[in-house]
Amino acid sequence: MSSVFGTLFRVSPFGESHCAAVGAIVDGAPAGMALGERDIQPQLDRRRPGQSELSTPREEADLVSILSGVENGVTLGTPICLLVHNRDQRPGDYQEMANIPRPSHADYTYQAKYGIRASSGGGRASARETIGRVAAGAIAEKYLAQIWGIEIVAWVDSVGPIDGGAVDRESITRELVDATVVRSPDAEAAIAMAELIAKVRDGNDSVGGVVGCVCRNLPAGLGEPVFDKLDALLAHAMLSLPAAKGFDIGSGFSGSRMLGSAHNDPFVRKGSRLGTVTNFSGGVQGGISNGEPVYFRVAFKPPATVALGQQTAAFDGTEALLQAKGRHDPCIVPRAVPIVEAMAALVIMDLLLRQEYRKK
Amino acid sequence: MSSVFGTLFRVSPFGESHCAAVGAIVDGAPAGMALGERDIQPQLDRRRPGQSELSTPREEADLVSILSGVENGVTLGTPICLLVHNRDQRPGDYQEMANIPRPSHADYTYQAKYGIRASSGGGRASARETIGRVAAGAIAEKYLAQIWGIEIVAWVDSVGPIDGGAVDRESITRELVDATVVRSPDAEAAIAMAELIAKVRDGNDSVGGVVGCVCRNLPAGLGEPVFDKLDALLAHAMLSLPAAKGFDIGSGFSGSRMLGSAHNDPFVRKGSRLGTVTNFSGGVQGGISNGEPVYFRVAFKPPATVALGQQTAAFDGTEALLQAKGRHDPCIVPRAVPIVEAMAALVIMDLLLRQEYRKK
Amino acid sequence: MSSVFGTLFRVSPFGESHCAAVGAIVDGAPAGMALGERDIQPQLDRRRPGQSELSTPREEADLVSILSGVENGVTLGTPICLLVHNRDQRPGDYQEMANIPRPSHADYTYQAKYGIRASSGGGRASARETIGRVAAGAIAEKYLAQIWGIEIVAWVDSVGPIDGGAVDRESITRELVDATVVRSPDAEAAIAMAELIAKVRDGNDSVGGVVGCVCRNLPAGLGEPVFDKLDALLAHAMLSLPAAKGFDIGSGFSGSRMLGSAHNDPFVRKGSRLGTVTNFSGGVQGGISNGEPVYFRVAFKPPATVALGQQTAAFDGTEALLQAKGRHDPCIVPRAVPIVEAMAALVIMDLLLRQEYRKK
Amino acid sequence: MSSVFGTLFRVSPFGESHCAAVGAIVDGAPAGMALGERDIQPQLDRRRPGQSELSTPREEADLVSILSGVENGVTLGTPICLLVHNRDQRPGDYQEMANIPRPSHADYTYQAKYGIRASSGGGRASARETIGRVAAGAIAEKYLAQIWGIEIVAWVDSVGPIDGGAVDRESITRELVDATVVRSPDAEAAIAMAELIAKVRDGNDSVGGVVGCVCRNLPAGLGEPVFDKLDALLAHAMLSLPAAKGFDIGSGFSGSRMLGSAHNDPFVRKGSRLGTVTNFSGGVQGGISNGEPVYFRVAFKPPATVALGQQTAAFDGTEALLQAKGRHDPCIVPRAVPIVEAMAALVIMDLLLRQEYRKK
Repeated sequence: MSSVFGTLFRVSPFGESHCAAVGAIVDGAPAGMALGERDIQPQLDRRRPGQSELSTPREEADLVSILSGVENGVTLGTPICLLVHNRDQRPGDYQEMANIPRPSHADYTYQAKYGIRASSGGGRASARETIGRVAAGAIAEKYLAQIWGIEIVAWVDSVGPIDGGAVDRESITRELVDATVVRSPDAEAAIAMAELIAKVRDGNDSVGGVVGCVCRNLPAGLGEPVFDKLDALLAHAMLSLPAAKGFDIGSGFSGSRMLGSAHNDPFVRKGSRLGTVTNFSGGVQGGISNGEPVYFRVAFKPPATVALGQQTAAFDGTEALLQAKGRHDPCIVPRAVPIVEAMAALVIMDLLLRQEYRKK
Repeated sequence: MSSVFGTLFRVSPFGESHCAAVGAIVDGAPAGMALGERDIQPQLDRRRPGQSELSTPREEADLVSILSGVENGVTLGTPICLLVHNRDQRPGDYQEMANIPRPSHADYTYQAKYGIRASSGGGRASARETIGRVAAGAIAEKYLAQIWGIEIVAWVDSVGPIDGGAVDRESITRELVDATVVRSPDAEAAIAMAELIAKVRDGNDSVGGVVGCVCRNLPAGLGEPVFDKLDALLAHAMLSLPAAKGFDIGSGFSGSRMLGSAHNDPFVRKGSRLGTVTNFSGGVQGGISNGEPVYFRVAFKPPATVALGQQTAAFDGTEALLQAKGRHDPCIVPRAVPIVEAMAALVIMDLLLRQEYRKK
Repeated sequence: MSSVFGTLFRVSPFGESHCAAVGAIVDGAPAGMALGERDIQPQLDRRRPGQSELSTPREEADLVSILSGVENGVTLGTPICLLVHNRDQRPGDYQEMANIPRPSHADYTYQAKYGIRASSGGGRASARETIGRVAAGAIAEKYLAQIWGIEIVAWVDSVGPIDGGAVDRESITRELVDATVVRSPDAEAAIAMAELIAKVRDGNDSVGGVVGCVCRNLPAGLGEPVFDKLDALLAHAMLSLPAAKGFDIGSGFSGSRMLGSAHNDPFVRKGSRLGTVTNFSGGVQGGISNGEPVYFRVAFKPPATVALGQQTAAFDGTEALLQAKGRHDPCIVPRAVPIVEAMAALVIMDLLLRQEYRKK
Repeated sequence: MSSVFGTLFRVSPFGESHCAAVGAIVDGAPAGMALGERDIQPQLDRRRPGQSELSTPREEADLVSILSGVENGVTLGTPICLLVHNRDQRPGDYQEMANIPRPSHADYTYQAKYGIRASSGGGRASARETIGRVAAGAIAEKYLAQIWGIEIVAWVDSVGPIDGGAVDRESITRELVDATVVRSPDAEAAIAMAELIAKVRDGNDSVGGVVGCVCRNLPAGLGEPVFDKLDALLAHAMLSLPAAKGFDIGSGFSGSRMLGSAHNDPFVRKGSRLGTVTNFSGGVQGGISNGEPVYFRVAFKPPATVALGQQTAAFDGTEALLQAKGRHDPCIVPRAVPIVEAMAALVIMDLLLRQEYRKK
């Protein structure tokens, strides 16, 4: 296991899907910042299951408690322990999988690596693992917004083959994103996406999707070449999410098809700083933020646990038909939106603290 | 700067494009392994400029010396210092850029971050930065091949809009890849790619591309959830490369458009272990290798330095026309092939050492 | 704050003296190991306040709960969250110190560093901070004992000017140490130590002391030169403890007064391995264990909080007389014994995991 | 091996005693700082062998070259490669030790750990290993002196049983220290120390000693509890030095014998800040600097390599008489002075960069 993320702002999440609690320790949070559960709960609410008929029916209020690091509503600079109790556990749902590893889930690889795995649900390879990330990210977000005016907004870019339209990265807000249950700001596409997810759910199947994200108002200078470049850390953070299979930033994969003369972002005076006319770079050049919006995409595969019968093999190699039970999302991208935002916040927060030493 | 990569197998590269030398320290290399410059030079030769008319005319032999960590041709377990002298420096080529930051290059962001930048060439934001990575990667590769039989092969998947055909990930070799100067195993596409690069070069422009890579014979169990998952570290490694803008693994972005029932990889007995029938997972489930080939793609943007005149702004905000000189690749993906292989080797090596502790 | 210790076995403790809970996350604990609260509680019991009249009257049962990482009494290889609730909090006891920093305590330096400090008690600079360390250390100790037969025993070497006699490092056990409330195996000295502590307590004063520790049955080969040498990590671990002011290993400071001919430990065959005739090296040569017992000492200053009036200055610089309230130990070394053992276990555990990769 | 030190200011030294070169990479050095070899050479000169008849006759000029990270005499913020060639190698001197591990040296433990060791001299367990540290430390020292006015001065406190007198920590300078070849500011003691070293040398023996060090003008607030406390990192740094066996800070071991009422340092107004009347704390409280001078001691054992015959065992367990050749210091503390200063500088530099983020 490697369960610590960050260099100066360090997050250590913990918790399996069916143990007593999940959460995280946040080490390195700035002292003297007003902080309460009310700052953290909203993103957990956006992440929690059961928000609509399109997500898993597991019922979890996911109420967070701050156990340390905050006194009289103000951070002390000491480690902040964030705790969320697991409530709606149904270990019995997983007996089918005792002998048969779910195809494309982590049952087999955890067993291969650790010689043991959580008998109920996905253990650490469960979406519940992300609660600690989201709670920690909310602390980072508060600091970034308050001190730097940084805004991070993610949305659903596509669900299966259905693409949302272009998003105005300068103006998109979480309110606009949350206007539809699928969290796609393109109202028309959102309807089609919701229909597809409902259909997939009713067919005991699942479907993938892509989340887009923009981070506005980053100062120029964030990112630590050559290994901890801003884009490299974002890629690391996003690919560490359950079910993530791809990441690109700025023009990304489509930019690889372009000529340099068309792809280069010419500089232009923007107030007292240099900005760029276009932003194919996605706000990052040489791994360092240039002051333009940073935007990127994260591709998620369809959830592996489907109730449809699957011909596969048991752990012992014999052929088997798996009909998975348990409560699972037919499509995770709507709930992935706050998770992607959280991970972006953790990356930016850590790089800001690492950069600020030049301030003197 | 953050110039150390890895947890147990740690690489610290150094060197600007126009200083005395570039190279790397490799800390944590296993002791007792036969090692000489001859093990490292071949990948540097595949990386070096001037291999064909399609790359920069900068002339560098890039001969590596091992300064420490090896005695009588055998590693001691101590840090290995790898050194390559810079020879063909032409600082004068960069006077045009003294006042005008190159669009989409790192001139502006380095200046913003550090308050200074290398006056000649790209400094650390130069392709020469990757020499240390490739040299270090060659050491990892030798260990991986010898002890584990691991094979890592990368190739050019696309150049601009020209796609190479499907690659047989089970059988592709470096020899097959090197059969064409563009390093695309699809002979027909390779010709079109070479023509496009030549045309772009003659037009003083540049073009992007995609590199594909497969890693075979990884044991199951590599990867450290939840943050140092195999795919997360590969994404980190690849996005830390100059000009990289995207990464996906297995089905990647296209997998996000699929249904779970089609995307899941059913298990099947393969000799004494479980394997999968399909491999949309790209050899990784839950962030841990499952024993199937790991494959991924890396998208590279077109090189930012083009000789075509560009309307942009100078550092002081005034409008300016930049006609960049210097010697640059019109397309970097052919030379990126050994670099991608090196970074993959560094990731796998480190995870192997981190995993082996379970052996007892 | 920097609240993560270790490279592969990583401990992230948290909690102030007067917040809701203290504890730790343990990341990297081996999977498949039987573990329950009963494995951890004994060392917490040896550490907790109120064990005798010689320690603080604060009443804390310090009962630990395992919240994650263990299922059906077996570790999963995932992060283990250990939680101990704070119960006997009396914030009112600290009003005297609101304006007057306690001499030689951390009130002033925390305020200088963070611009804020816990208003009640020492916050993170409290002995309660060590609960997370001891709980985590107990997990390491179980593994070390079970798999490697490693034994770690600490004792009180001196209290103020009273020295305990020589300790037989080959045979000393925790039972022998716990035979007296001061935890000095020298029965006669123990009586004098207890009398001194009682007298100091009654005089509203405090007194320092030294803890000795031996670690037996370490395999040769532990320690990662040149920076993570076994002795360097032990020194780091011990000096990170509250009130620690010194560390030496083997002959230590007294060895600096010797000649090499007398200090060198000649080798001799011991069964199938080489051992040494003497052990001035303290089991470590070149920063690597040699298979002989590792032993060291840790010096602790007298606790800073004393009820005796002290002429000092308030935060605003005005002269002030401080008469500290609160419940504090007159001498911490008896309770420091399990804490020193815990930190030794954390260091050895991490180095064992880092070394085992050579096993293949 | 673990050959990287620091979190933001990271040093990766390399090089065996008899390979081509020794040196270090410094990552994270601030950009825009004037730097040349002349800033680094003086401390290497103070460290190099052959400075007097009291040190090893190995002849090494130890001239340093800066290979990267500096352009036109100014740092770029990129990794700085520092290189010193090994010149006076005499591998033949070590044939006696091929089969017989030197008592109390690292021959046996390196062989046990790595299964191999440098056949000539101590490899990485040689005093030459410290060249990279000293060179890197000189860069840190320049920054600390220039930007913060920090002064670091070490001296020889004792040689064998001969103690130097009290040192005025407020006024001691390197010039005063270097006034005698043994680097003890107590002129009378220095004569006795020199005589002892000469006698020990002539007797083919060696002797230990203690180095004292003071760091003045540190701002309050340096140190990252609970693990990267200033004193904990100093202890780590010092115990990582070859032959170091002990460390204490402030009152150290002697403070453990005191009462709290005598040991506590009362606060007093000093200009615009609080200072302390006494300084038993050694400038550190709760692991954080308080603005008073930080002072500590490092105990070094007698060098293990002595020409006197030693009855010991060969690697194969047979009894053997070892008469070591090679060129070795009879006492290392005079040369350890700049090494201790360098390590102190590395610790303070890193903590300063980690602390400065609060500046905003």
